[in-house]
Amino acid sequence: MTTADARTPASMQNAQNAATPAENANTADAVGFADTEGAGNDEAGRSIGWHKGYVQGSRPDLRVPVRQVHLTNGKDVTLYDTSGPYTDPATDTDVRRGLAPLREHWIIARGDTEEYAGRPARPEDDGLKRTSPRTGPPLPQQGGERGEGLRNLDAVFPGRPRQPRRSRDGAPVTQLAYARRGEITPEMEYVAIRENVLPEVVREEIAAGRAVLPANVNHPEIEPMIIGKRFLVKVNANIGNSAVTSSIEEEVDKMTWATKWGADTVMDLSTGRNIHTTREWVLRNSPVPIGTVPLYQALEKVDGRAEELSWEIYKDTVIEQAEQGVDYMTVHAGVRLPYVPLTARRKTGIVSRGGSIMAAWCLAHHKESFLYEHFEELCEILAAYDVTYSLGDGLRPGSIADANDEAQFAELRTLGELNTVAKRFGVQTMIEGPGHVPMHKIKENIDLQQEICEEAPFYTLGPLTTDVAPAYDHITSGIGAAMIAWWGTAMLCYVTPKEHLGLPNRDDVKTGVITYKIAAHAADLAKGHPGAQEWDDALSDARFEFRWEDQFNLALDPDTAREFHDETLPAEPAKTAHFCSMCGPKFCSMKISHDIRREHGGEQAEIEAGMAEKSREFAAAGNRVYLPIAD
Amino acid sequence: MTTADARTPASMQNAQNAATPAENANTADAVGFADTEGAGNDEAGRSIGWHKGYVQGSRPDLRVPVRQVHLTNGKDVTLYDTSGPYTDPATDTDVRRGLAPLREHWIIARGDTEEYAGRPARPEDDGLKRTSPRTGPPLPQQGGERGEGLRNLDAVFPGRPRQPRRSRDGAPVTQLAYARRGEITPEMEYVAIRENVLPEVVREEIAAGRAVLPANVNHPEIEPMIIGKRFLVKVNANIGNSAVTSSIEEEVDKMTWATKWGADTVMDLSTGRNIHTTREWVLRNSPVPIGTVPLYQALEKVDGRAEELSWEIYKDTVIEQAEQGVDYMTVHAGVRLPYVPLTARRKTGIVSRGGSIMAAWCLAHHKESFLYEHFEELCEILAAYDVTYSLGDGLRPGSIADANDEAQFAELRTLGELNTVAKRFGVQTMIEGPGHVPMHKIKENIDLQQEICEEAPFYTLGPLTTDVAPAYDHITSGIGAAMIAWWGTAMLCYVTPKEHLGLPNRDDVKTGVITYKIAAHAADLAKGHPGAQEWDDALSDARFEFRWEDQFNLALDPDTAREFHDETLPAEPAKTAHFCSMCGPKFCSMKISHDIRREHGGEQAEIEAGMAEKSREFAAAGNRVYLPIAD
Repeated sequence: MTTADARTPASMQNAQNAATPAENANTADAVGFADTEGAGNDEAGRSIGWHKGYVQGSRPDLRVPVRQVHLTNGKDVTLYDTSGPYTDPATDTDVRRGLAPLREHWIIARGDTEEYAGRPARPEDDGLKRTSPRTGPPLPQQGGERGEGLRNLDAVFPGRPRQPRRSRDGAPVTQLAYARRGEITPEMEYVAIRENVLPEVVREEIAAGRAVLPANVNHPEIEPMIIGKRFLVKVNANIGNSAVTSSIEEEVDKMTWATKWGADTVMDLSTGRNIHTTREWVLRNSPVPIGTVPLYQALEKVDGRAEELSWEIYKDTVIEQAEQGVDYMTVHAGVRLPYVPLTARRKTGIVSRGGSIMAAWCLAHHKESFLYEHFEELCEILAAYDVTYSLGDGLRPGSIADANDEAQFAELRTLGELNTVAKRFGVQTMIEGPGHVPMHKIKENIDLQQEICEEAPFYTLGPLTTDVAPAYDHITSGIGAAMIAWWGTAMLCYVTPKEHLGLPNRDDVKTGVITYKIAAHAADLAKGHPGAQEWDDALSDARFEFRWEDQFNLALDPDTAREFHDETLPAEPAKTAHFCSMCGPKFCSMKISHDIRREHGGEQAEIEAGMAEKSREFAAAGNRVYLPIAD
Repeated sequence: MTTADARTPASMQNAQNAATPAENANTADAVGFADTEGAGNDEAGRSIGWHKGYVQGSRPDLRVPVRQVHLTNGKDVTLYDTSGPYTDPATDTDVRRGLAPLREHWIIARGDTEEYAGRPARPEDDGLKRTSPRTGPPLPQQGGERGEGLRNLDAVFPGRPRQPRRSRDGAPVTQLAYARRGEITPEMEYVAIRENVLPEVVREEIAAGRAVLPANVNHPEIEPMIIGKRFLVKVNANIGNSAVTSSIEEEVDKMTWATKWGADTVMDLSTGRNIHTTREWVLRNSPVPIGTVPLYQALEKVDGRAEELSWEIYKDTVIEQAEQGVDYMTVHAGVRLPYVPLTARRKTGIVSRGGSIMAAWCLAHHKESFLYEHFEELCEILAAYDVTYSLGDGLRPGSIADANDEAQFAELRTLGELNTVAKRFGVQTMIEGPGHVPMHKIKENIDLQQEICEEAPFYTLGPLTTDVAPAYDHITSGIGAAMIAWWGTAMLCYVTPKEHLGLPNRDDVKTGVITYKIAAHAADLAKGHPGAQEWDDALSDARFEFRWEDQFNLALDPDTAREFHDETLPAEPAKTAHFCSMCGPKFCSMKISHDIRREHGGEQAEIEAGMAEKSREFAAAGNRVYLPIAD
């Protein structure tokens, strides 16, 4: 704490200077290495590219990762890093062992949680032969030998056995509870360094419910991050196998791949077999918070018959997932019985899978939603693990025609009520938003949500601004995402090119993440987030000075930028040549600008005065608008 | 006229109904064919997909092309079509002969233009051995034998010889002049049908200078289109070989490829050899207006030495291009001597090629721009051919840091003056805009431009909303493009993934056009353009009803949408299956919505009343949330 305060004023003075963390990192035990995917060479053949560095916090075990881009002009640019230990050659990672539990000491030190036996895993947890939720042959604890009844046996996570942990006395063990008590946890200091703000700012925003720090006590592997409008806009990537296709290995690979390109959180939306086991692999290997929709797994447990769902089955599933370490859960408690008929005359009805499951249950029983009825009990469970609510918008519009309708806003008002209840129980809460919304109706969504939900973080899916471009919905939605984030949305759920068409593959995941990082950063710029523009400025300087390698290494996707450049000008010298393929060597607009700067770099007055003289010099110098590359 | 007025009230009644032109087309001599790239099959194996149709105007030779998408539910959706005769199997096209001169009769019938010998083509027109602009061996007229001095001899366009045409008495022969006189030309009626508005609306907007209809009397091959904020947002695609790479064939192919995907105009920005000949091939084969930057060719004529440029060389180049049929020309007359020093301390100086050429000339001579000094003479030339001005923003920002600065707005004020002058000479005029602008500074650009330029159409390049994503600048700029178009920009100049990195290939051109069609349509929706939403609604209906083939055929890019779907669910039945790969057959949210609609499709009152009863029926029906595909 004290140490933390000691270092933060510095970073505040430099709030406008993105390089600050780098300076710290240089004085800290920064681990450096050349990422082969980003590396280039300067004239001396020294590796440039980027390196993984760490900013030392107030305690030895608090080291915040950063990506340091080393420019050919000797300067450093430090960027936010979500890639985890995988990009640090000094740390050897093994997906079969899982990541090191960085936060374990912090959690234990708080002394408010305890380990316990936990709920035994069951075959139906993995969508296998159904047994009653309460009985049935227990599987060995995760990390034990092969699970009886599991089809895909070697899929059981082999990492060290672990006991789940929960609140000792049932009191909330949430970052919200700590923040309200005035405590700045190591997690808060960690995100303060990441965001380059004072830890006190982090504490205030969490205490006020304007930000969440998703960090389940059973997910000690994460590198803490924060979601709130005062901080950098975050991006979530969805993964998950489905009844139709894909494997555990693919999902773990998609998770690490998504975080490599900048995903701040990952949601596991698996719906097929091996849901429990897939999630275990993902959690144990994830450096970012993991979100889920427990209702999906609960539905698998009743063979897809929504009417057979019950509070007991749902609650059991929530506990199962909380013990595994899920950091935030989408809960569709706002889909109330009276709202279902409001969707009857919509163009695309209910498109949220969770929303339609709850609607089906309400119809079948003609009863109020069991999630709404048992919401307070659910709050007690989440508070005991610090699972963050992501209150789902089950009635979000599925088309331009249905945007901002009665059903959508009726549910939003209910989410507002539930947000207040959750806060009373000390549970961190964010609110999910649409969906499909034309540009002129976007602002109403964020404004209403902020008003109704007391500024709780808004977490939106896009929104898509038109429905006519399947196969390009990362773009139709990237437009809406950038706008709604500028206006205050804290986290954006990505959309891939496969949206509405199929399951995203590795390339789709990358394209979706990059597109959404663009939307998020464009919003950070528009919000005037301290330091955001330094990144653009560094790249613009490199562009103006024809430092091609620096442009590539500063790019969101260095590989593709370099590849595109090389298609037209493959020659190595071209990367330092004083022209680009657009104008060619004979004439180059950038060169002219350099001439102008050379001639008129001074003050306005002397510029006017010196014009005639300067132009004589220009003529004397041969009126060359293009100077030889050598020069 | 009379006939035109007779039919338009109908289309106005149906202004909300995008299908109107289709209905007309059905009663007209619509040419139908199955586009193999869009075709699918219904159960009976009949070809569906889309067909080229025509809407008959008030005269036999006025037939407006439309794309009719035939849905499997028997309905038609009619979409704006820019692809030209190439997608009409009833018209056989031959790039060596060029397109039919559709407008020739209309132009001749006006009786205000005459053919004349025209300016002889010269070697330097194609960037070959330099001779004085006034003397030097003339080449045979276009269409004659091989051009002496031309490297790439068989590149000379072989189509029929043609004499250029210009105003008989020097009076303006522009659509603006006609509109001011109260005349509704066939071109105006043509765009009225295309835009589904009254011809009088078109005339008014052109007369007021709020819209332009680029149509050089020497480009009779075009299908007229209009650019103005009251009409559909348009998209321009740039092509053009450069000193570094590419061929004539490639450029002609890129032009037809760009219009196939929806480009409304094409700019030929060639800078290398064979500029004149490449342009001739492009013009003779283009169904859309062609724009150029005459300064680029003028610079080639002085071997890239900007200081050797002169009004005479520039004027000669403008006449050369006007005689060929260029429909609009970017003129950087706003780059004035006093503004050059304002760019000295910018992060990226001057990034507009035309702007930097003029800046270099001003520096070299320390004189006011010859374009600014001779602007009135230039107006007289353009008025004699109906070439539309696109007043270039030579000082547009090249980075986030330079957005909305003094240099940019000083030039904009000058463009405002020049717009007034151009209008006095009866020349149609639009204004070019940025560039690189963060989201929060975009609106100021369009608002200022509309105020300063008396609502003349704004034509913007993006703008890019961040600089950190080279290789994805179609997306960084698509975001800005959608927003600025919503706020009133009339035409968007596309940006491809290769921006800042290299020359776009065929795939890049397609990606750029599709991305910008998305931005343009998202803006049409946000502006509430009559009929715009019907397209989205038709696709949303198809999605809700699992009519996969209809979703593909209605998509901006049917090929890619179908390909992505087939990756996950290749089986043909899957295209009519009542589920998608996201949920799988076991549970499907859309199915539930259908159940809800079936149960609660009635009025709110009876819905409430019938809830209990309905839910008993639901239970009686077996509580199935998933109904067999057969059903």
